[in-house]
Parts: sequence; C-alpha cells; structure tokens
Amino acid sequence: MSTTAQASTQSVLADLAFTRALTETLARPLTPEDQCIQPSPDVSPTKWHRAHTTWFFETFVLGPHLPGYQVVHPAYDYLFNSYYEQVGDRHPRAERGLISRPGCDEVAEYRQAVDRSLLELVDRLGPDRLETIAPLLELGTHHEQQHQELLLMDIKAVLSVNPMRPAYRLGTTPTDGGRSRPLGWVDFSPERIESIGHEGDGFHFDNEGPRHDVIMAPFALSDRLVTEGDWLEFMADGGYRRPELWLSEGWATVNAEGWEAPDYFLRADDGADVASETSWCVFTLGGTRPVHPSSPVCHLSYYEADAYATWAGVRLPTEAEWEHAALATVGPAPAVGEFDLGSAPLHPRPAAEDADGTRLTQMFGEGWQWTASPYAPYPGFRPAPGAIGEYNGKFMCNQMVLRGSAPVTPAGHARSTYRNFYPPHSRWMFSTLRLADDR
Amino acid sequence: MSTTAQASTQSVLADLAFTRALTETLARPLTPEDQCIQPSPDVSPTKWHRAHTTWFFETFVLGPHLPGYQVVHPAYDYLFNSYYEQVGDRHPRAERGLISRPGCDEVAEYRQAVDRSLLELVDRLGPDRLETIAPLLELGTHHEQQHQELLLMDIKAVLSVNPMRPAYRLGTTPTDGGRSRPLGWVDFSPERIESIGHEGDGFHFDNEGPRHDVIMAPFALSDRLVTEGDWLEFMADGGYRRPELWLSEGWATVNAEGWEAPDYFLRADDGADVASETSWCVFTLGGTRPVHPSSPVCHLSYYEADAYATWAGVRLPTEAEWEHAALATVGPAPAVGEFDLGSAPLHPRPAAEDADGTRLTQMFGEGWQWTASPYAPYPGFRPAPGAIGEYNGKFMCNQMVLRGSAPVTPAGHARSTYRNFYPPHSRWMFSTLRLADDR
Amino acid sequence: MSTTAQASTQSVLADLAFTRALTETLARPLTPEDQCIQPSPDVSPTKWHRAHTTWFFETFVLGPHLPGYQVVHPAYDYLFNSYYEQVGDRHPRAERGLISRPGCDEVAEYRQAVDRSLLELVDRLGPDRLETIAPLLELGTHHEQQHQELLLMDIKAVLSVNPMRPAYRLGTTPTDGGRSRPLGWVDFSPERIESIGHEGDGFHFDNEGPRHDVIMAPFALSDRLVTEGDWLEFMADGGYRRPELWLSEGWATVNAEGWEAPDYFLRADDGADVASETSWCVFTLGGTRPVHPSSPVCHLSYYEADAYATWAGVRLPTEAEWEHAALATVGPAPAVGEFDLGSAPLHPRPAAEDADGTRLTQMFGEGWQWTASPYAPYPGFRPAPGAIGEYNGKFMCNQMVLRGSAPVTPAGHARSTYRNFYPPHSRWMFSTLRLADDR
Amino acid sequence: MSTTAQASTQSVLADLAFTRALTETLARPLTPEDQCIQPSPDVSPTKWHRAHTTWFFETFVLGPHLPGYQVVHPAYDYLFNSYYEQVGDRHPRAERGLISRPGCDEVAEYRQAVDRSLLELVDRLGPDRLETIAPLLELGTHHEQQHQELLLMDIKAVLSVNPMRPAYRLGTTPTDGGRSRPLGWVDFSPERIESIGHEGDGFHFDNEGPRHDVIMAPFALSDRLVTEGDWLEFMADGGYRRPELWLSEGWATVNAEGWEAPDYFLRADDGADVASETSWCVFTLGGTRPVHPSSPVCHLSYYEADAYATWAGVRLPTEAEWEHAALATVGPAPAVGEFDLGSAPLHPRPAAEDADGTRLTQMFGEGWQWTASPYAPYPGFRPAPGAIGEYNGKFMCNQMVLRGSAPVTPAGHARSTYRNFYPPHSRWMFSTLRLADDR
Repeated sequence: MSTTAQASTQSVLADLAFTRALTETLARPLTPEDQCIQPSPDVSPTKWHRAHTTWFFETFVLGPHLPGYQVVHPAYDYLFNSYYEQVGDRHPRAERGLISRPGCDEVAEYRQAVDRSLLELVDRLGPDRLETIAPLLELGTHHEQQHQELLLMDIKAVLSVNPMRPAYRLGTTPTDGGRSRPLGWVDFSPERIESIGHEGDGFHFDNEGPRHDVIMAPFALSDRLVTEGDWLEFMADGGYRRPELWLSEGWATVNAEGWEAPDYFLRADDGADVASETSWCVFTLGGTRPVHPSSPVCHLSYYEADAYATWAGVRLPTEAEWEHAALATVGPAPAVGEFDLGSAPLHPRPAAEDADGTRLTQMFGEGWQWTASPYAPYPGFRPAPGAIGEYNGKFMCNQMVLRGSAPVTPAGHARSTYRNFYPPHSRWMFSTLRLADDR
Repeated sequence: MSTTAQASTQSVLADLAFTRALTETLARPLTPEDQCIQPSPDVSPTKWHRAHTTWFFETFVLGPHLPGYQVVHPAYDYLFNSYYEQVGDRHPRAERGLISRPGCDEVAEYRQAVDRSLLELVDRLGPDRLETIAPLLELGTHHEQQHQELLLMDIKAVLSVNPMRPAYRLGTTPTDGGRSRPLGWVDFSPERIESIGHEGDGFHFDNEGPRHDVIMAPFALSDRLVTEGDWLEFMADGGYRRPELWLSEGWATVNAEGWEAPDYFLRADDGADVASETSWCVFTLGGTRPVHPSSPVCHLSYYEADAYATWAGVRLPTEAEWEHAALATVGPAPAVGEFDLGSAPLHPRPAAEDADGTRLTQMFGEGWQWTASPYAPYPGFRPAPGAIGEYNGKFMCNQMVLRGSAPVTPAGHARSTYRNFYPPHSRWMFSTLRLADDR
Repeated sequence: MSTTAQASTQSVLADLAFTRALTETLARPLTPEDQCIQPSPDVSPTKWHRAHTTWFFETFVLGPHLPGYQVVHPAYDYLFNSYYEQVGDRHPRAERGLISRPGCDEVAEYRQAVDRSLLELVDRLGPDRLETIAPLLELGTHHEQQHQELLLMDIKAVLSVNPMRPAYRLGTTPTDGGRSRPLGWVDFSPERIESIGHEGDGFHFDNEGPRHDVIMAPFALSDRLVTEGDWLEFMADGGYRRPELWLSEGWATVNAEGWEAPDYFLRADDGADVASETSWCVFTLGGTRPVHPSSPVCHLSYYEADAYATWAGVRLPTEAEWEHAALATVGPAPAVGEFDLGSAPLHPRPAAEDADGTRLTQMFGEGWQWTASPYAPYPGFRPAPGAIGEYNGKFMCNQMVLRGSAPVTPAGHARSTYRNFYPPHSRWMFSTLRLADDR
Repeated sequence: MSTTAQASTQSVLADLAFTRALTETLARPLTPEDQCIQPSPDVSPTKWHRAHTTWFFETFVLGPHLPGYQVVHPAYDYLFNSYYEQVGDRHPRAERGLISRPGCDEVAEYRQAVDRSLLELVDRLGPDRLETIAPLLELGTHHEQQHQELLLMDIKAVLSVNPMRPAYRLGTTPTDGGRSRPLGWVDFSPERIESIGHEGDGFHFDNEGPRHDVIMAPFALSDRLVTEGDWLEFMADGGYRRPELWLSEGWATVNAEGWEAPDYFLRADDGADVASETSWCVFTLGGTRPVHPSSPVCHLSYYEADAYATWAGVRLPTEAEWEHAALATVGPAPAVGEFDLGSAPLHPRPAAEDADGTRLTQMFGEGWQWTASPYAPYPGFRPAPGAIGEYNGKFMCNQMVLRGSAPVTPAGHARSTYRNFYPPHSRWMFSTLRLADDR
C-alpha cells in the first residue's frame, strides 16, 4: 500500500471517529423523552438516528468483514433498517416513535459496542488490508453526516410541537442585520457548454455522476438569498392568496394545509395584519425570536419558492446553472475552517453588508437552495448493484434538487456537485431561495 | 365536627396519601421513554396520567381553596386537562405522545409540589374546616384510582407495540389451572322487582344513582367467566368468519380490523391451525405466555362478547341482573383483604376448581364483564352543575356498561353498583365475558 | 281456509299491488340521472331502491316458491342485495352510485317481470294455498314501504348537493303558521307499570316484541314538536358553541362537521347574524323556502336533540313513555284517511293553532321523534333464524330509537309500537324533537 | 385578408364543426346514466366533458366577442369550469358525479345553443374580421379534442367498475397477431446536438416551445412497443414482487394499491398461476378479451414502465430522444389518412409482422409512450398572461412526459413535438412502453 493511500485511509479513520463522536455530542442537550418522539412520519427520533447509523456499520461493514461477528441485538436489524428493501423486513417508518426500548442509554451502549468492533476490525486488517474496507467506512461516515443533519431537522420538529417551545441550544441564534441590502444580480453570459457532475478521486455519492456536458443559455443569479424581509413583502402583496402565482399542486397544498407563511413562522398576535413584521415570530433551534428582515427566509416548500419567483417575475436556477456558478465563484467545495456543528449557530445568517452586487454570497452554509430541476438521473447513470445501490437512484421521482448546504450540515459534507433532493411540499429541512433570470 | 366525621375525614386523607404514593409505585418499573409513548389516541402516556391526576387537585382543590396558590407551571393547565371543556382549552388528546417536556423527573417534581400544597391546605383548614373539602379530596382520590387502572391498561398497549415485547413486571403472571371446569348456571327466579343503584353515604360516582326499581324476568348467570379454552372452541367453529353470529357493526369491525382472536393474542406459528392451543400466545403485563385453557379470556370487544353469546345460544346479562346477583351473592363490595396493586398478578386467574355450580365466582377482580346494557342515565339522573358535572353524563351515548372489576383495579375501587363503560369496539381494557340466559 | 283468512289474504295482495305501484309513482318526477346518483354512503340511488325491493321478492318469494323460476338477470343478485350476509356476496354499499347499468328503463322492466311472476305464483297457488306465502308478501310490502321513505329521504340528499337545488315536487310545501304557539305539557302521573310492545295479529316487525311490563315514573310530554322558531332561539343563545350543552361525541361531531344549524338549513346571507330568521332558508322536497317559525324543526341529529333538551332544562322521552302516551291519546295507529304519499306535502306542518295544552298533537306524520332510548332488544327478544332474521336484531348497537312517523312515511306504515332507529349523528331522515320532563 | 389566411380560417371553421360534431358522436352509444357517473376524482362524466368544452367557447369566445351575448344558464359557469382559477369559483372536481341536472338532453341543448351563437359570431364578423378570433377557435377545437380523448379514457373507467362490464362499442377490438416478433433496436449515433420543440406556424400548445438545442449521447430505441406477451414474462419473473426493480414511490404504490398487473387486466381464474396467459383477460372499450401476446401492453403507470426497463437492463427514452427519433423517421406528424375516431378500434394493435429491426414502428396511434423526462418548462418558457395562461405551465411539477399518441387520440391531434403528461401513478390513460438504451 502506498504512503498516499495510507494517508488517505488514516484520514478516513479520523473522519469516522470524529463523526461518530459528533453524533453523540449533538444528542447531548436532549432528554431521553426528546429523543423518542416522532411528530410526523417524515421525522425520525434522535435515538433512531443514533441507532440506525450504527446499524449501517454493523450490517454493511462488521457482518460481512469481521469473522465471527455477533450482532449486538437480533431485534435491531428489524428496528433500525431504514429503507433497504433487500436487507430484510423492517419496522414501519411511521411507527418509529412508538418504540420506547431500547432506550437512550441502551442505544449509547450499542454505539460503543459497534465502535469497539470497528476498531477491532481495523486492527485485524492492519494497514495493508484496510484499504479494502476504507470505501465502506467512508460511505458510512458520509451516511452518518447526512443523519446528523436529519437529526437536527427532526429535533426542531419535535421541539416545535411542544406548546412550551423549548430551545435546542440557547445563545447560538444569529443576530439580525437590519433591513436587507438590495438584491443584486451576477451574470453568466454568453451561452456556453459546460461540464457538470463529479470527477476525480474525492468522495461523492453515486447520483453526482457521470460528469457530462450541458448547454446553458445566458443567465443571472441573485447575489444573495431571499430574506424574511423580502418574504413579508410577498405576503403583504397577497402571495398566499393569489392562485395565479402558484403551481396547481402548490395551490392545492396551500389550501389543504392552510399555509399562510413559511414553516416555523409563528403568529405573534392573532389579530394583527398578516404581513406586518410584528405579526410573526420565527422558531429556531436557538428559541423563538422576532422576524429578522435581513436573515434568509428558511423552511420553504418548492411550491413557495416557485410562487415567489413567479411573483418577482423571474425564475429558479437549474441545478446546472447553480453548479457552474458555484464552481466558478467558490470552487469545488466551501472552506471548512473553524466550523463546528456542535457549537455553530443553527440558523441562516444575514448576508454580509458590504457585498457589491458583483459576487455571489451565501452559496454554502446558509441554506439549501431550491432549483428548478426535477431530481433525475444524469445521462448514463446506473445504480450500483445490491442493497448499497438503493442509496439514491430509487428516489429519482417526484422530488426536486436543492443545492448548497445548510447551517445544520456537518463540516466537510458540502460540495458544488452535491445533489440534495426533497418532494416539493416538504418544508422541515433548511430550504431557502436564490433567484435566477434569463439574460 | 363529630368524632365520626373526623374519623371519616382522616380516612379520606389516608386514602389520598396511599393513592398518590401508589401511582408513583406503578410508574417505577418504567423508563422515561416508556412513560412518553402514545401508540393510539385512546392510550395516554404514563407521564400524562401522573400529571393529569395532579392537575385535577391543582385545578379543583388548590386553585379554589388555597389562598394565594400559584400554579406550578402555567402551561400545565393546557397540557394536562383531559376533557373538561368548561375549564379551558386543552392539548389534543391524540398528541399526548408528542410532548417530550416536562419529562419524567419534572412530572415527579410537579406531583411533589402539589402534594406539599395539599398538606399545607389541610394544615391551614384544620380538622374543623377540613370537612368542606373532604368530598373533593375523596373524588380526586377515586379519580386517580381510575387513572391507575388506565395507566396499567395503557402501558400494556405501549409495551405490546414493541417487537421485543418487554414485560412490565416479571413473575406475577397467574398459572394455568389446566382445562376449565364445566360452566354451571345460577338461577334467579321467579320474576321480581328489585332496586338497583347506589344508596347510603359511601363514595360513589354520580352515574350510580338515583336508586330505582327494575322489573326482572327470571334469569340465570354462568357461575364463572368464559375461558381461553372456551374461546378456542368458538374460534375452531369459525367464530370470526360467520357473519350470522355478529352484530352488523361488529362484523364490519372484524373485517376492517382483520380480527381473528381477542386483543393481545399473538400468533405463535403463522402456518398453524387458527384454533389450536399451540397456535397462540397471550401477551400479559408479566410477559408473553402460551394459551391457558382455564384462564378467563380477556381483552374482548363487546362485539366479540355478543357474538360468543349468540354462538352459545344464550345472551349477555343486563346490568340490573348483574348488580342484583352481585349484591345477593357477594354483597355491596368485594373484600379488599391483602390486595396490593403494586405486587398483584396483573391478569385474570382461573376460577377455583371446587366450585359446585351453585354459586357465582369471579364477580370481582378478574375482569370487567360486558353487559347487554347501553350506558344510559338512570331515571331521574341529572349531571352536577359546572365542570365537575362533566364527569360521567356526557359520555352516555354509544357506550356499553361493564360490571365487576379487573386485576388492574385498585383495592377499594370496586362496588356492586359501579358502572364502567366503553365503546363496543374497545378492547384494550381488561374486558371479559359472563353469560346469561332466560329462565 | 276461512273467509276471514281469505279476506285478510286479499288485503295483503291489495296492499302489495298498491305499494308496488306507489314506488313507481314516487320515481316518476325523476330523471334517469337523478335516479343514479349517490352523494354519500348512507344514501342509495332511487334506481337501486326500485331494484332492491324487487330483488327481495325475487329472492325470498319467487326463488323458493315458484317452481322453475329463472332470475331476470344473474348479476342482479350481486348488485341489489343490501345487507343479507347469508344470501351471498354483494356489491359494496358505498359504490351504488357507480353502476350506470341496468338503467332506469331496465329496472322498470325488472319490476314488471317480477310483478308478473308474483301474479303467476298467486294464480298457481290459488286461494287455498296462498296463505302459506301471505306473510312473506306482507313482509315484502312493508319492506318496500320502508324503502319508499328511504327513497324520498335519499332523493332529497341527491337534489340538495346540486348547486341549482331543484325541487322534487313543486307546490306541496306546507305554509307557515306564523309564530308558534307556546309549548304546553301533558302529564302522565302517578308512577305506573305499563305493558309496551306489539300484541295481536296485525303486522309488526320482530323488534316490536315481546310485549313486556315497564315501570314508569311520573312524566310529562310537550304537546307539540319543537319548531324552527324555537330552534333559532337555541342558536341565538350560542347553542352550537357551548360544549356544556352537548354529549361528548356530539360536541366532537359539531366541531368535526362544522355544524351550526340543522341539516338542510342553508345560509341565505353569509354576512348575516347566525341566529336571525332572515339569515336562513330551508331546503325541502318542495324547494327552498324561508324559515317558518311555526313549522317543526326537522333533520336533527340525536346530539342536537339532546343538546336542545339540556339547554331547555328538560330531557328526551324514553320510548316506553312515548309509546304509552301515544296509545293513551291516539291509539294503536294513526288514522290513514286520505293520505297519499304521491301527492302529500313532504315536509312537517305547523301544529294546529287551537291546541289547548291538554292534548298531544303531531304524534304521527310530522316527523320521527328522537327518544332517550338506545336501540336494544326487548326482554326475551330473539332474532328469527335464517337470512330473514337479519332484519332488525343485528342493528341493535350504537343506534337510538325514534318514534312516530314522518311526512314521507307511507300510509299504513305507522304504529304506536313501531321502533325506528338511527345512529346518533344521522340527520338525513325526517327527525324531529318532542320534549319530556320528570313530574 | 389574404387568400391564404382566408383558406386557413376556413380550415379552422371546418375543424371546429367536425370536432363539435364528433364529441356528440362519441357520446351517442352511452345512456344518460353512463354519462353521469364518476368512479374516481380523476375521471369526469361524459356529460361534463360535453358541457365543459362548450363552456370554454362560451367563456373565452362568445362572452368577450359577441356583443350582448347572454349565457345559456348562469349556473353553468360554476358547474363546468375545470381549473381556471382566474375565471371564478368552480364546482369541486371530485363531485362532478353528484350533479344529476342538467341532464344529457339539457347538455345537448346547451351545445346546440352555443354552436348557434358561434355561427352567429362568425357571420357577424365576416371573413375580414374572423381572423381575430380564429386562434381562439383553433385553441378551443384542440381543447375539445383533448377532452374527446379524456371522454373515452373516462368512459372506459366508468364501464369497468360495473360488474357486468359492458362494452362501449362492440366489434372494434384489434385481433391478436400471435406471439410478438423479437424486439429490435434502432441506433442513433454518434453524439449530437439537435434542436427540439415546435417551430413554424402550425398549431401547438405553449409547452412545446421555445425550440432549443439539446446534447444527445448515442442511444437506441426499441423498434416496437412492449407487448402483453413480454409483460407476462416480467410478471412470471416476479416483476411485481421484487422491490429492487422499483422506484421507492413505485414500490410503495404497488403495495398500497395491491397491483399485480397493469390496469384493466382482469383475473380470468383466481386460482391460476399469476403469470400464465390464461390467467388474465383484458378489458377494452370493445369488451373483455383474452390476453393478446402481440398487442402492446397498455394502461401502465410510470412506475411499472420504469420497473420493466430496470428488469430488462435498459431504460426509458428521454423526451428529446423520442422527439428526435420521431422527426427523423416519421416526420413532424403522423399521416391522418382515413382515421375516424367514431369507428376506429379503440385499443393498441400489434406491430406489423414484417418489420426488419431497422425502422421504428408504432410511434403514433398505438399508445402514449412514457419517457424518462419530468414535465418541466423548456429553457425560456413563460406562461401566457391571463386565464388562458393556466393552460399548461401550472402542471409542471410531479408529472412525467409521454410522447406519441393513442388509439383514442382524435385525428390531427398528434405531433412529434406534442408533450403529454401524467403523474407517475396514473394508469387510466392509454399509456404504453418503448425502451431505450445507451450506445
């Protein structure tokens, strides 16, 4: 094994250890009861995320590769499989909140037991043979990072249904920057053919390839995300009451759900004007705060993002436009720097004041950005064979692509080629809005 | 105040203290997660029962009677009101399992705080004025006893949805008595007019009166409850597949729910004959055990009880028949003796072997017994005014009366005049079956 | 066969012929499309009623008794069985409105063919042996009368969902009598034991017996039905917004269904005061008309009837009280006189102006009257064996008894012992309200 | 006005007259009841299609352009608006089957009245000014053609829920061609950039443009549609029971709906092998017939089409691939020839026997062909302003594109640029499957 390969494998092990520990750090502010609740079928209990990510290593790494490995508990395979149809029967997703045992502490023991076995496996293989399982360990690490983000999304939903609306972590909410600066536009002209999709050795999910050429007509992207202040203008102009602004399914959803604001907007005063700043508060992981005119509006459905763009006379970017712009301005990935999910502000922050309308801001870390692109396979895409192949391809229907990353995305998990995806009615993820236009 | 009245008041205080402590004893085997789960809208979390019974004292005793009383937490009034519409808004029943906070420990603190305030109130009033609130304390005690039974019914439902099916308390299950002795009949002839309903000073709920005369044609009651062994014969004879045995709504429910056995019957072997003893296990609070031919069959809906009686060519007793028979054979209430819910077997026990067909057994303590009587007001019944009046009258529709008491009923809570009631499709209470016939 | 028996049999045949013809008369004002629609699972298409009543004779009379009888169409047995589980599979009730063929004309041919075969059977049997099937023909006639009332109830529902709200038959609506006269009370004192239930040779359904004794405390009945004018007072006093007036299930239904008035009350003016006379119209089979203060309020659920009685500080009568009062004042049945359903007003009429508060009015013909009695078997009741035995007994659960008869009840179908029954939430039948009180 | 323009306008008028008459021809075999039924929210009654297409002309042509025009009935605007939110309130789609009036004959009168007014408008305008409304008349004609196809799709659903399964039109079903010839592939290599989308003067819907360039990697299309015989092989290989073949939502749908064959496949024999030819019949507009191994399999969901392609190791074509191939082989539109929807076979026919694997067959007229392309706007697409702009753009979410045309598509309505679209679970349209592969 080459030194480079060994260094890379060591990096995989370090990331694994860091990620496994971070999950427990994220669960630490939560009571056993917090970790057990499931307010809707989309949302999984914290405890389940902690166990499922562990089950992933047990099932795909320890079982096949550690001779004589005995599972920690035979029932866990049934309880903590998420959607891998080929692995066996699984507990119904909508009933994850009905499982009181194993409890918080037993799940901690499960995690420790699996971590010990992973160490044992690493020891047994030694540096030379470690390379054979390194890709699986890396996949498991990135899989757990995805669940760290889900854990934070889901605990926000859990805490929000409590009428006392407890905060997850006080003192981390970004402050308001006052009124938001005017929206600027960054042009990408003239028409061009660009390659998009992942290339090279770095980790990526299967859906990010194959790399392929795309024709792009001239376009422009807004230089910042749409803010809560901008959104109040949309609401003041009857945004939620004008069917001509909405996709047909979107309008049906607005009416069926009674939407009149983004998710986690709470009425401060029932009698007040629906579109006034003082009529609304926003629930964040740091607690409930007044509307911040300069903070990016977050927890939008695709329908809302599209309606806003229609109202503004523009459109959403395609994922190819977004990816090309990100690569051209920020590069293949954001700087990780000092970012620590364990202490980070867990809500989008206002854009820098000094932007000059010539450069894109908030491309990463402030919110997933809806694109106009349905989540579909890239030309030439084929899912990997076997259960691992269920990873991404089977969701390529009735979902839309989001790009960028969110305040709850772990460090190192963001890439310009990353394709996140959600159904158009979903709002519990940290979804935001950047506008595009033809040029 | 008379010595007798003082003695009676002391007895109320003693019962109150015992009951408040017993609730916590019943919760002790449970983890915080166990106490938080709600598998269906009918079932409330343990934690909720502990808090709601406390809220009852806070709202109806401390608030009106302890000058300057400050509620422990302003949100609890919203969270822990059950159905008292006149007291104010309340948290939706079906969402009780979505409330992670207050947690187990905070609820324990709430209970202790209210208990301390109750003691303070008792002190302040002194023996002379205590009589004024004694009826409220007594009502609160009996209310909490009702919730102790619900707590055990509900935790059974919670534990049963866990694929690992943990026991609530090991080592308490009654043993099998082998094949059940033949069913005997006890006659009550000739036709008579009898008074039913509560009379005298003892505690009773409003729905037990007014006492009134009832005409009874000659009838007979079976001398024991129908057993699991009897039930397998019904199943073997196609009981769950023959529409002519069922009420119309019952047959619709059988088909909609896919019922093929009583609740908590579990298939031991999917391929086996549906009516064989070895095909089924029974989940109890003491764990899962094989079918016991001599144990009373439990967790029946009214529909199932009625279908069995039709199949057997007989009928269910009316509540008047049951009450008259109980009073004539056991008396106004069962002997309390050494019964301790904190250590009792929590499942019906086989009838004594030596019964001679001339006396009724299992009238109390082995299971609530469905009657043919819809739950309706007795002649002259009027609900009490105010929120306390919501206690019983408003449920007098679409429910059937059950009589007797169950293995999970607290000592001192059973009476021959007690009217329990459930909708005909309900099965999660400890409901059993005694037959009746015309003579 | 005696002359009396022959005369009685001739009367059965005459009633049969009259009834079969009346069904077609009732269908005549309706288009083929009117006869095909099913706006809710409770409501059956006119065409289905016409065919089902015919299927009843084909299945229970012609098949068993006319040698060599060939059914008109093999599919009709599946399509037009209503709920006789023992007869075979049947088409789902909720999908009756999805069957376009057989059409109106084919159903008319079906009716004619079966009528011809019935005549052939009568001829073949001759006067001497006709007696053997006379009870079946009589049952079939009364069964068809029940469906005539259902046909009118159901077509009212059909026409009411059409935004153009067409009338079934113009020119038949009763006129308003102005303000209603004050409610009087008729006393039945002292306490007594009375027999209720059917006795003698006349036709009756199985559920009307056995006749048996009942103890009645002193009581009083209101001398007229509650009127639309009375109801507006209830509404004006917040009747639909005060939970303390309602049964628990009733309050849940009010909120789930958004009830704010009886069924078929239509808002005349959305902005107006909810309790003003001019705010509401009433849809009748004769078209939409303003509120009539003196007309009996109709299309009430049991929940509404009970809430009104609670609001008025009184109660509903038991069915025994009602039956005793009817027998004592009107006799075993109302006078039939000139009543012709084919031309009758099809809505309750105001009570006579000259009532003097000493006699009961509107006991029959103006609306079924809710009682406080759950629909339960009389002591000693056993269903008849076989499919015919499915007639009434299997519905004895979660329904309440109504007494009297309605403007849409065929002549000759009303009796003082008649037990009609509906679930407490039902409103599409012609249900009205007479009050009772203790004395 | 030029002679050419006049000729073109005359052609619009001729198409309009032909199309208006054809709708009535299509309704002629149906009874009033057939035309009134709505078995599911997706399906509209025949009567509604006849009225809605008429309302379109009344609302968008007569109202704005014929001075003094009085609507035929004021309620029709509410009843027969489909989804034009900007035009006003409308009757709920799911309740179209609850409207018995206007009946069949009244709708015929409505159509005649509007046709007369259209003629009056044409007369008044005269040849010179007719050009101004010709585009609206042409749009209305194509709109009515769409509804002719829907009418036939919908009446198939109506007739199929009747247990007697009547045929719409006997004697028109295509015959079986025996076993299907082997599937051949037609190559389109090498990689190319092609323009797709409509160009020129001919009629097209807004969603067919703007014309734009697309990069196409080398690909191949199957030379015929997948047949019923092919499909039985998929079923025999466990196609409906293997989750690894399905999209995640598709597998959930298979299980929720209990799918085990395409829509309108009926079990011939419940006990037989699920994948045997003799186990299934197929319901067509010509009646029920045995499986035809050589006929294209029809009434597939997107999920089924995708699962089959996965099973076959290939994929679905993109809409760009399909359009390019159609243009290159058939041209911009199929030959209309003698096609008459009023007498045509209304089911896909087997491919010609003599195909040589070098040319594409069945591109038009035998079934809409699912593509892998989500229904999204072409680059630069903007909806037209006003209510007419609701035509297509607002459905661009959660739908997939189908290309080609069906046996129930009116002559002249098919184009190589035509973009049909349905949600992926829909099956009641005539949807078929052509395979694609990378080259």
